[in-house]
Formats: sequence, structure tokens, C-alpha cells
Amino acid sequence: MNKQGFYFIEPFTEDFYRFFKLEGVHYEGRTKYQQVHCFKSRLFGKVLFLDNKIQSAQVDEFVYHEALVHPAMIAHPSPRRVLVLGGGEGAVLREILKHGPVKRAVMVDIDKELVGLCRKILPEWSRGAFTDPKVKLVFQDARRFVERSKTPYDIILSDLTEPLDGGPSLRLFTREFFEIVSGTLGDDGLFVLHAGSTDPHYNHFFSSCVKTLMEVFPVVRPYWTSMFSFSLPWGFVIASKNIDPSALDEKEVRRRLAARGVKRLGHYSPQIHRAAFALPPYLKKAIRAGRLITDAKPFVWKA
Amino acid sequence: MNKQGFYFIEPFTEDFYRFFKLEGVHYEGRTKYQQVHCFKSRLFGKVLFLDNKIQSAQVDEFVYHEALVHPAMIAHPSPRRVLVLGGGEGAVLREILKHGPVKRAVMVDIDKELVGLCRKILPEWSRGAFTDPKVKLVFQDARRFVERSKTPYDIILSDLTEPLDGGPSLRLFTREFFEIVSGTLGDDGLFVLHAGSTDPHYNHFFSSCVKTLMEVFPVVRPYWTSMFSFSLPWGFVIASKNIDPSALDEKEVRRRLAARGVKRLGHYSPQIHRAAFALPPYLKKAIRAGRLITDAKPFVWKA
Amino acid sequence: MNKQGFYFIEPFTEDFYRFFKLEGVHYEGRTKYQQVHCFKSRLFGKVLFLDNKIQSAQVDEFVYHEALVHPAMIAHPSPRRVLVLGGGEGAVLREILKHGPVKRAVMVDIDKELVGLCRKILPEWSRGAFTDPKVKLVFQDARRFVERSKTPYDIILSDLTEPLDGGPSLRLFTREFFEIVSGTLGDDGLFVLHAGSTDPHYNHFFSSCVKTLMEVFPVVRPYWTSMFSFSLPWGFVIASKNIDPSALDEKEVRRRLAARGVKRLGHYSPQIHRAAFALPPYLKKAIRAGRLITDAKPFVWKA
Amino acid sequence: MNKQGFYFIEPFTEDFYRFFKLEGVHYEGRTKYQQVHCFKSRLFGKVLFLDNKIQSAQVDEFVYHEALVHPAMIAHPSPRRVLVLGGGEGAVLREILKHGPVKRAVMVDIDKELVGLCRKILPEWSRGAFTDPKVKLVFQDARRFVERSKTPYDIILSDLTEPLDGGPSLRLFTREFFEIVSGTLGDDGLFVLHAGSTDPHYNHFFSSCVKTLMEVFPVVRPYWTSMFSFSLPWGFVIASKNIDPSALDEKEVRRRLAARGVKRLGHYSPQIHRAAFALPPYLKKAIRAGRLITDAKPFVWKA
Repeated sequence: MNKQGFYFIEPFTEDFYRFFKLEGVHYEGRTKYQQVHCFKSRLFGKVLFLDNKIQSAQVDEFVYHEALVHPAMIAHPSPRRVLVLGGGEGAVLREILKHGPVKRAVMVDIDKELVGLCRKILPEWSRGAFTDPKVKLVFQDARRFVERSKTPYDIILSDLTEPLDGGPSLRLFTREFFEIVSGTLGDDGLFVLHAGSTDPHYNHFFSSCVKTLMEVFPVVRPYWTSMFSFSLPWGFVIASKNIDPSALDEKEVRRRLAARGVKRLGHYSPQIHRAAFALPPYLKKAIRAGRLITDAKPFVWKA
Repeated sequence: MNKQGFYFIEPFTEDFYRFFKLEGVHYEGRTKYQQVHCFKSRLFGKVLFLDNKIQSAQVDEFVYHEALVHPAMIAHPSPRRVLVLGGGEGAVLREILKHGPVKRAVMVDIDKELVGLCRKILPEWSRGAFTDPKVKLVFQDARRFVERSKTPYDIILSDLTEPLDGGPSLRLFTREFFEIVSGTLGDDGLFVLHAGSTDPHYNHFFSSCVKTLMEVFPVVRPYWTSMFSFSLPWGFVIASKNIDPSALDEKEVRRRLAARGVKRLGHYSPQIHRAAFALPPYLKKAIRAGRLITDAKPFVWKA
Repeated sequence: MNKQGFYFIEPFTEDFYRFFKLEGVHYEGRTKYQQVHCFKSRLFGKVLFLDNKIQSAQVDEFVYHEALVHPAMIAHPSPRRVLVLGGGEGAVLREILKHGPVKRAVMVDIDKELVGLCRKILPEWSRGAFTDPKVKLVFQDARRFVERSKTPYDIILSDLTEPLDGGPSLRLFTREFFEIVSGTLGDDGLFVLHAGSTDPHYNHFFSSCVKTLMEVFPVVRPYWTSMFSFSLPWGFVIASKNIDPSALDEKEVRRRLAARGVKRLGHYSPQIHRAAFALPPYLKKAIRAGRLITDAKPFVWKA
Repeated sequence: MNKQGFYFIEPFTEDFYRFFKLEGVHYEGRTKYQQVHCFKSRLFGKVLFLDNKIQSAQVDEFVYHEALVHPAMIAHPSPRRVLVLGGGEGAVLREILKHGPVKRAVMVDIDKELVGLCRKILPEWSRGAFTDPKVKLVFQDARRFVERSKTPYDIILSDLTEPLDGGPSLRLFTREFFEIVSGTLGDDGLFVLHAGSTDPHYNHFFSSCVKTLMEVFPVVRPYWTSMFSFSLPWGFVIASKNIDPSALDEKEVRRRLAARGVKRLGHYSPQIHRAAFALPPYLKKAIRAGRLITDAKPFVWKA
């Protein structure tokens, strides 16, 4: 029994650390925008960290990406134009492209070097999505892109890193940004973002995202699932002008999945669609305590 | 910024460790049956480990205990006699006693010394439940007790430690034991057990519990939630002779909660009751790959 | 990492950590002046940390304390009055009192609470020294005490913590302080201090102490030994007005030890006295690169 | 623990671990004979581990290799033929070749693959020694080679890994092997080996090597230095048929160094030569408690 060797140490919080035994180091370095660690673990497979926050792991990136993409996509009657903010690994694109109606999927990521890295060291994530003719990649600040965008999108997906102090995502979780997003959505459009942990201790970012979206959108539906590789329950929010994704019954979800030819799902299902919107009482209470996030007073993630 | 100091190190698996910074050590020692570590963490509050497996933590023991107790209790039209196997911390009793109809709650735990410790160092768990006149404590091997039990129970809850090699729970997760349990249940009786992780990597114990219960009980309904302090999604199973807990609609759950006077719920709700039974496709597939657990070939948890 | 349980984690440097498995926690808290951690390790026995720097461990405190005390004491023809700066554990006093000629041993430590703690939880260090009638304890800043001291001392021993930023020892390793010390020594007086690591990487504090003492004292003799519990070779310096401790031959050391009745030595011996002053070439070179430490530009230990 | 990232974790003992933050991974793998980890640390530079035991580190490999090679080499009036057992990194050869009289240096290492790795990833160790025309490399079991060797050697240096259970060095630290070595030495020949830690806790291997050599050689002289990268004081032993290396005075050591043109020494010096043989009382006592190591009852290193 041999426990020595190479490890990745993650200061999850100041009081809690995770140690990953390495099967191999895929990458360690800095792009212009962020610190990158990519390694292999027997338990989690390939794992990607940006600025010391886990992004996704091979063992359950399907859970994260299906949970982010499909509820909003299915809620839209016919999503043709889709915009991804962030999403450097390419797995959001991969899931979007499973929906037959999609004509155009634009991905805006600030970090060209990172996207290049992901294509090279994490091909299992994108599985060819980057070269799909429907896909357009734009390397630009997401806010700048959305501000100048004219054509309305059916779905906008935010797959951004946490708003770390000085990091590239700080002004991408504010009321002002959400208002710009709202202006770029079509009438039946839906906006979805992942919004951090929903655990009983650290859920203030999630709660505040929900609270802030409520100031901008008529319909706001938080939901969650459990992310094994994050060691956390993880929150998402769908916001829209009129469509309520939680109102779809299982039968209709099943019908749309079949009609669009969506296949190879490991996490998402009609049942999961319904169940994900059920929040435990502690989380409902937490949402009431969320705060408004603005450009003037952004939410700064504490490492 | 001070990162030195005292920590608890948990070898979660051979490849993944969790480090808990200590705010204080409450207890370290051995009872006759198991190794006990109890400490305080700023993130998780008080935490109890038995044989190096986390049992519960102050921050979310309510999630675990509500998830274990209420779905089965609510599914029964009028639970009067309840039996707890294990449950040394006393929080299962605490939740059971919230249900008005309960007349008798018997708890059978092999480890008298541990129960004494929990009463002393974890009073926030039991909150007086141990001294409730409806409660009877029996310090005995759970299997031996159930084998000799004559009066039928409405609900039997299994809150046992994992079946570690040589540990006290090895023969409490087998077909033979489940058959004995079935014989001790009344006609409307329900049996519920927690059954380990439902993550995409380690779910074989969960799957095999489901598979084995299916050999014994006509109705078997697995469900799950996310346990923050376990760093895992966590599985439970309700098995019964005829009642299907997943068939209750939200309205009826709400009605029963009100009628019985069940209050102060942080995790459980009518919505959560329904949602918890929705399993993702990967887990349904995993259940099909579960194996039959028998006395001759028990499931042995690998540390 | 195959053992779960409680540990003490020491950030030795930013790049190197030591993990001590705990057999027990003796103390964790703050005095007015410093953070205290005291625990038991199977390998090192009881261990004391102040402000996250190891002070001494049961397994080899005899090495440290004999190495600090005896070379200077033996070099003096008849040490009667001895002053200890710091030395809270009481083991410096213990070693001093082995020398028959000693009439008075004054110990000045700023931290009364710490000395009380050491008497209580580390009695193996002092072994009754604190209650010896020759001993006088003064709880005061060492610099203030030495500045006002009038009676000359034969030996002054500095057993202080490293000069951490904002810590109590910052101005106790400067030319100005050494000049005050010099004024308090008798003509045959010797001053000895421990002065940090002599390893090939981190020896700048040691080198600078030597360099600074050379500005003040006619005779300066650095020496060293290996400290197992520190994971380091450890440096000391004797400075005096005329006596050269490295000139004593083994025979004379042996004679003095016998004449004074010094017994129960585990580390120090006539051979070791001679050998300790032999410095490897890399360390001689390092000393030439030491810098002058002054009140205006003190040496600040980087954690 | 405030720094995330890649680390090497070394279970120093069951109760004490060292964590090295990585600047880079140079190699991880297995040769036919042993597990190899090679990485870069900011504190220690390049570090080589074999079977999870540290072999040498860039920061102080000069200390280890000079301490192993020069005392025995200098003690011999004119070392011409030198044999190295183990020594895969090539730094023993490097130091041997500094002595002008050397005509032939034979190195016998069982692990050809490891030597190839060292030449490639640790060129700073050998600095060209492997291609010196005086050097001959033999890839064979050291015991087998010595048994069949006919020509007598002036110096035999043992730079072997610890005798781990099942490892390649188990029968290279026994009385029987030392007898074979003795038979291969010329009349003025000296045998030197490194023999593990001399700390107050773990010195039984050192003590037993000394005890066992005393059964075979008329002259046995243990000595030691401090190895920063090992976090330990480290022991060596010279054994010979008639030459006493500890009897050389500093002047003669200086004369020989000059006559042979030995240069670029960072650790070894005439003073150090003398000083290294001074053992503290605790170690002398420990040696008396050493045991005889034989083929029938070898010393097995406990990880």
C-alpha cells in the first residue's frame, strides 16, 4: 500500500482542503487571464482548475453540462440561435448541438489560449463541437460582446468562472449585465447560469444571483443538482421574459427530447427536469436573504 | 493569514483526501465496537467520524436525518410503532418524534458507550429525544433484536454504519437480514435505509442494496439528496409490502405534515418528497448492475 | 497518508510543510504575546510551537539545550552569575544549574503566561529548575531588562524566538542590543545565542548574526549541531571580550566538567565541544555574505 | 497550506509527513527494480526519490557526496582503484575523480534504467563523470560483482538504497557481505558506507551497521553530518584493515587535498574531517545497543 507521491492540493476554503492523488499532470501554467492546473485522478479522471477553482472533471462533467444546458433548451419551443458565455471546455457546445433545431451556436470566451488548451488536453469534453459548422467562436470579453450584439438569441447560457477579485468574471454577475442580457434575448428567450454552491453554509452567491435576476426578469427559476467532483450541491438559475421552465410536465419534456433527437443523456431526463426545481426549505429561506448584485457593488468570491 | 495548526485528515479514498481544520477536538478514542473522532470545524460545525467514516456534521445533519426519516413516515397513514436500527446520535429519534401519531420509538444500537458519548458531546443532535417517554433504548446487535422481535412495526429505519470488514454492520445489509426485517413489519409497514453514495463513480453499494431489497419487497423506491458534509450525493431506499411512497402527491404530503404537527423542517418538504425519487439515467443504469448481497457474500466496504 | 486522524500542519516554508500525527493535544491558544500549540507526537514526543515556529521537542530538547548552554559555560573559568533571555521552557535553567559554580541564574521572559503553561504542561523540560533557590524569574522585555541591569554577568544566554514581524524578539538581534549586552558582561563574560538554521539554503539569519556580533565583540565563534525535531542543522554563536571557547582542548573541557560535577549529558561532550566549531566551507562563505543587523534595519523572519 | 497546486507527499514515517510543493515533475515511473519520483522544489531544487526514500537533492547533494567520498579517499595514502556500489546519480564518481591518483573507478549498479534516467534528468549530479575514461560502469547485483572480483580495491564506497523489504539492497548490509568486501580490499584499503539517520529516535540501522562492521574489520570509525534535504542528521562508517581515518590531523588532510588537486569543495574540509568523527554521547550509547546483521537475519527498513 503506497500513499506517497504526487498530489494536487486545493484550499477549498480556509478551513477545508481537498487532496487529489495524481495519475499524471496534464498542464500547469498561466494564460493571460488565469492560472490553469489540469491533472488526472483515478477517482475523478481528468480535472481542470482555473484560478484554483475546479471547473469540471471527467467523471461528472456530463452532470454539470447537461444540468446547465438542457432545462433551458427544452423549455424553449424551438431554440435556433444560442449564445454561450464562457464555456471554454467545449462541453456546453456539445450538449447544445444535440438539439436538432439549433442553427447557430456562438461561444464568447475571453481566453483564447485556454480554449486552445482545452481542445488539446480535454478533447473528451468538446468531442468535435469546436469544428461543427454551426459553431462560431469569439474571443472577447463577454460583456462587451453582449452589449454590442444586435441579433436576438433564443437561449443564452452563462458558463463563467466565479467572480474572483480581479478575475475576468467580476462584472458578469450584476444587475446591469443581466439587463443587457435581457435586451439581447428574443421574446421567448431564456437565460441560464450556473451560480455556485447551494449547500447550507455557502449559498450567498447563489441566493444573490437569484435575487438579482428577480429584479430584471419576470420569471426566475432556480434549480440544483449534486456535483460529485465539486464536493457540493450546485445551483443554476433560469430567467426568462415569459416561459416558465418548471411548468413543463414530464410528458412534454419527453416529447421534445424525442422530437429533437436528443440522445446519450447520463444525467438529464424528464423526471430530473421536474425534480431539479424543488428546493429545500433552507435554500428558499437563504434566497430571501440574498442581496442585489450591481456593478457598483459586485459579488466578490472569497477564495 | 494563518494556515498552520491542527487538522483532521480523512482518507476519503486511496486517491482523495479531505483535510478539516480544527476549531477543537471533542473526542478521540475507541469504544468496544468502533474508533471515534469528534471535532469542531468552522465550516461544518461539530463532526462525528466512526471508523474513519463521517457520520454526521452539525451544518447538515438536518438534511441527512430529515431525508432518512420523513419520506417513509409520511408514506405510512399512521405510524405508531417505529424501530430504529443504529442511530446512535439520537437525531433519527428527534425527527420521528415530530410525528404526532407515534406511540413508541425503539432504538437498537450495539454501542452503548457511543450513545453515551453522543448524548454528552452532541446534545444538538438528540435535543432531548433520548429522555422522551415514548423512546426505548436497547443496546444489542440489531440483527439479534429484529430476529427475536414479535410485535410488528409500522416503520423500521436503518441508520447503520457502512458494512466495514469486521465492523458491526456487515450482516445488516443482506437479503437474509432484509427478510427478517420484512417479517417484523406490519402490512402497511415501510423499511428505509441509507445506502451510501450515488455519485457516478462509487454507487455499487447503493445499487446492490436496491437490487437486494427488490428480491425481498414488492415495492422498492430509491431516492437521494446531496450531503454537503459527506462531499457526496447520498442514497436512501424505502422498501415496503404495498405502500408506494413515491405515489404521494404534494398536496397529500402537505396535509399529513400539517395533521401530524410536523414542524421545523430545513430540508424536507412536499416538493422535496416528490423530487427525491427522480433518479438520473446514470443511476438507473447503475442499479441494473447492482448485485445480490447475501450472508454468504456480504458487501464489504473498502476503506 | 494511509492514516486518518488528527494532525498538526506546519508551513515550514511556503514550499515545504511538515505534518505531525497527533497522539494528543496538550494546548492550543494565545498568550498576550504569542500563539501556542503544544501536542504529542509518537516520533517527537511533546512538541511546543510558538507563533508557528517549533521551539523544542521532547525527543531532542536535550540536544538543543546542551548545545546552547554548555560550550559557553565551560569556556568561562568560573561562571557564577548567569542571565537567560527568553528560555520559557525552563530547560536552559536546568542545564545551567548543572554547573557547580553557579550562584545566581536570572531568567527574563516577556511572557509570564507562557512560562506558567510550560511549568504545567512541559515539566520534563524544567525538572524543578524553576523552584531552585538560585533562580530568579523576571517577566519583562529582555531589552528593557538588560538596558537597566547594573551587575555584570559571567554568561548571558539568548534563547529567544525568531525575530518575526511584530513579534517580541524583533529588536533582540541587532547591533544596538548586542552593544548593550556587551556592556552587561564581565571581562571574562561570554554571550551565546542560538541563531537559526545553517542549512545551505536558509542561513542568512545565522550569517547576519555572526556578522553583526563581529562588529561588537572581539571574539566571535559560530558553531552548530543537527536538530532532528527542527528538520535542520542549527546554528549558535558565542561572542566574548577575550575568551575563545574554540581554543579549549578536550582534556580541559573534561577536567572542568568533572570539577563542576556536570552530569547526565546526552549531546555535549569534550569531543563535541571541539567538533561543533568546525564549519563547512559553504557556511564560511555564507557568513562573509551576512549583513549588519541594526535597530533601523532589523532582520525580519519570513514565515 | 495557503497555496494550492501540485505537491509531493512523503510519508517520512507513519507519524510524520513531508510535503514538497512542486515547481515541476521531472519523472514518475518504475524501473525494473524501483519506483522513481523526480521533481523540482523551490527549496531543495531537483529531488530524487527511489522507493519513496529521498536519495539526494540539488541543494545539498554536495554535502552528502563529499561526506561519503572524501574522508575515506583522503585517509588512503594513494587511492588508485576505487569501487562504487550503487551510486546511480553519478555524483560519487564525480567526487572520486577529483583525486589525482585515481586510475580506475568502477561503479556497479543493478539498475541500468535508473542510471540512464539520472544521466538524462540529473546531469548536475554527474557533471560528465560517466564519460570519463577512468570510469567503468557495470550493471549487476553489487554482491554478485564483489564476490567474483579478483583485483583488490583501495577504496570501496557503498552508496546503496536502504535495505527495504524485497528491495535490491537487503543483503548488502550484512556481516557476510562485509566479509566479502573485506576480502576485496587491499591491505591499506578502506570501505565506507552511508548508514542512515543518527537522530535520537531512529538510529538502530546506523548502530547495527557499526556493530556488524566491528565483527569484520579491525578499524571502524562512524561519523556523521547533517542532511538538510533528508531532514535528518546522517551517519556514515569507514571500516578498514589498518588505517584509522580519524587519526589524520588537519594539516595532513590539507596537504593531501592540495597534493591531489582536490578542488571545489562545499562541505568537506580538513576541519570537517576531524569534527565529523565526534559522536554525541547518546549516539555512542546507541551504538552499544546495535545488533549484528546477518544474511539469516538482515536489517529490514520499515517504511
